[in-house]
Amino acid sequence: MIATPLMINALTTDLYQLTMAAGYWRAGLTEPATFELFVRRLPPRRAFLIAAGLDDALAFLESIRFTEEERNWLRALTQFAHVPSGFFDDYLRQFSFTGAVSAVSEGTPIFQDEPILRVTAPLPEAQLVETALLATVAFATSVASKAARVVHAAAGRPVIEFGARRAHGVHAGLAAARAAFIGGCDGTSLVDAAYRYGIPTSGTMAHSWVQTFADEVDAFREFSRTFPESAVYLLDTYDTVAATDKLIASGLKPPMVRLDSGEIVSLSREVRAKLDAAGLQATRIFATGDLDEYRIGTIVKEGAPIDGFGVGTALSTVSDAPALSAVYKLVEVHRHGESAGVIKRSPGKHTWPCPKQVWRVMENGSPVSDLIAGVGEAPPPNAVPLLQPAMEHGRRLTPTPPLAEIRESSRRAVAALPERLLSLDAAADYPVAISAPLDAARVTASRYDR
Amino acid sequence: MIATPLMINALTTDLYQLTMAAGYWRAGLTEPATFELFVRRLPPRRAFLIAAGLDDALAFLESIRFTEEERNWLRALTQFAHVPSGFFDDYLRQFSFTGAVSAVSEGTPIFQDEPILRVTAPLPEAQLVETALLATVAFATSVASKAARVVHAAAGRPVIEFGARRAHGVHAGLAAARAAFIGGCDGTSLVDAAYRYGIPTSGTMAHSWVQTFADEVDAFREFSRTFPESAVYLLDTYDTVAATDKLIASGLKPPMVRLDSGEIVSLSREVRAKLDAAGLQATRIFATGDLDEYRIGTIVKEGAPIDGFGVGTALSTVSDAPALSAVYKLVEVHRHGESAGVIKRSPGKHTWPCPKQVWRVMENGSPVSDLIAGVGEAPPPNAVPLLQPAMEHGRRLTPTPPLAEIRESSRRAVAALPERLLSLDAAADYPVAISAPLDAARVTASRYDR
Repeated sequence: MIATPLMINALTTDLYQLTMAAGYWRAGLTEPATFELFVRRLPPRRAFLIAAGLDDALAFLESIRFTEEERNWLRALTQFAHVPSGFFDDYLRQFSFTGAVSAVSEGTPIFQDEPILRVTAPLPEAQLVETALLATVAFATSVASKAARVVHAAAGRPVIEFGARRAHGVHAGLAAARAAFIGGCDGTSLVDAAYRYGIPTSGTMAHSWVQTFADEVDAFREFSRTFPESAVYLLDTYDTVAATDKLIASGLKPPMVRLDSGEIVSLSREVRAKLDAAGLQATRIFATGDLDEYRIGTIVKEGAPIDGFGVGTALSTVSDAPALSAVYKLVEVHRHGESAGVIKRSPGKHTWPCPKQVWRVMENGSPVSDLIAGVGEAPPPNAVPLLQPAMEHGRRLTPTPPLAEIRESSRRAVAALPERLLSLDAAADYPVAISAPLDAARVTASRYDR
Repeated sequence: MIATPLMINALTTDLYQLTMAAGYWRAGLTEPATFELFVRRLPPRRAFLIAAGLDDALAFLESIRFTEEERNWLRALTQFAHVPSGFFDDYLRQFSFTGAVSAVSEGTPIFQDEPILRVTAPLPEAQLVETALLATVAFATSVASKAARVVHAAAGRPVIEFGARRAHGVHAGLAAARAAFIGGCDGTSLVDAAYRYGIPTSGTMAHSWVQTFADEVDAFREFSRTFPESAVYLLDTYDTVAATDKLIASGLKPPMVRLDSGEIVSLSREVRAKLDAAGLQATRIFATGDLDEYRIGTIVKEGAPIDGFGVGTALSTVSDAPALSAVYKLVEVHRHGESAGVIKRSPGKHTWPCPKQVWRVMENGSPVSDLIAGVGEAPPPNAVPLLQPAMEHGRRLTPTPPLAEIRESSRRAVAALPERLLSLDAAADYPVAISAPLDAARVTASRYDR
């Protein structure tokens, strides 16, 4: 296992970040500014999200540089015709991210409007990193949140993430595997995710293995020779019930069988009965094929004898909510040496000014409400702060904890949530309040921006 | 511009591909087999897809190798306890993809069940590459297809892809930018996509630029100093109409303004009227903010004075259909030196056997129907074959054409489609037939697999 984050280069940004950076630099606007990354609205039928993706985000901030080739290429863009060459030869040549980041720990339940990341850095630096931070954090958060739902629906049965082939490219598949594990999945089919992150990996045979042999039983026998303890026999290539009979007649002692199509509930009962009648009570049944939290919830509710689930597309593409309304918004700038909270008032897209902390008020070990307050405001009683310093002067303060630890602390945090939030059709109703001083600051910023 | 595809490593595969590869190798099943990659069903309201992603797919096939570290890590997996060491020390050490690929050209309209890629290679090789081929080709095809719809809805107005921040990680954003350009977009906001692929890039200012200044007019003036010809002034940070008045009063000659929120149709009329009254007829209006083909269709239909569109989430996540039902299915194996067509009969997931060609029957330069036939069958009259040899012995036969050429040929091919397929609510009704010999081969394979 090697913990290598995916590399993201400096050009992984929207062009307007670079034009603004050039403009800030030219105008001498290089004093620190603060941006916050948050989700405006939870997706439908979600009552919480699980923060994830911060490890890749911090690795990106630590590594971002512009190569000479990249700088020369940028300089030649027509848009930059009037940008003084010092921007390329001095500023971008020496560029690195030198700022501070506070972040919610990966695996933490979060809600709408709550900053997941707070970035304070010289304005052009903080601006340039927006695109990559949003893409990295929002996708991982989206998948971890979906995984928490799927795992909850499975009610204790293992869930393996099988979604790499349907992900938005293989790199998305890799990020999805990590985030799904944080959200509670027990493993992944993706070998690279196991290699990089130490996630347990599983998978044994596809239909193609069965099709390769002239007889299904030959396919099963040949597989058992090399994988006697770990084989999962796939039964639905031609006819699930007939394949069950053949497998039993073969005399093999299958550790597990897999159903991938058809009426899973009735088929699982039929297969279970046949296995039991043959003395194969120890053989477990694994189900795959277009599963999501709703299908799994139904299967569990109907009491189908299924011992584990493989979930693909629903996890790796978050197919019912493939984009989060995540934004990265400027909340404070320095003007003439003084800090000023700033807002936007665009319809449906307004913001609150000033750097913020999220306070989670706890009662008997369970969160009961959150308060979004200005940094430095007195905390409410019995509250813990969610944003913790993660980076200073462009360097991480602490290594990312082992993934299994993140997963375990997420599991505990989800279990402590109010029960009503865990329903698959929950509405977003966890109380998230904005502090009175922040509301007041909004009015001030509002006057100021005219 | 450098044309560097993203690297995909050999472990980017599902574990079952590796267990099966080990099993095939051990069983001596290393003769050539053929797999085909196709889409089972078009997403709702789609009547065609645009093939894309083949360049990354071929680059992956050319580069895939196992490092010593990867082989040693694999060897230590408990699942591989009974796999002879020759699999790691000989087979994987020397492993490269040595097979042949035929492919539909990027940018070509395709339909359900039509192979986009046909891979013929020693069985373990062809098996191992499934996961990465599916993720790469399906996502790019999905985005290119969405882009063709968005561009059609814009009815000649430029469409810029702005979706990197909402993509499933930055690598998905990069692949999306390339695919969106193939599908007809005019440019991308993503700098890395411009750098790697030569796609025109655009973008000038975000709300943060405007918020940084105490006065909106100061923000506009300062920007115009560095970007006099390319500035697009963002009007909705506080109040779109008031910002228009301020911009006009400033005396700047804005090349373009951008509306990002609010009632776009009525706002664009109001802004247009103010600009015209001020003699700024040359100033164009660009619209962004949660746009997709339906919103754009409405805006165009209502005659809003909008000169171009920026489209983000809808393109980079294909938010209404975030996963294609793409599959990679074994269609032919060698058994005892003879080729045998193979199928699966799983409910709702059956396949046709044997390597195939897709013949597109043309009338007056327009496609009228497709025939999926076995390779070697006589073609129908007036038909062109869609699958062309792309790789032999693991090496590409021809370089990928320049992206602008792919885009232009795609534009022509879409324009030649029957008009009914281009509607935004089209049903999938283009005639795709299966040849009689293939149907007969299915019956034969069906008998054989028992």
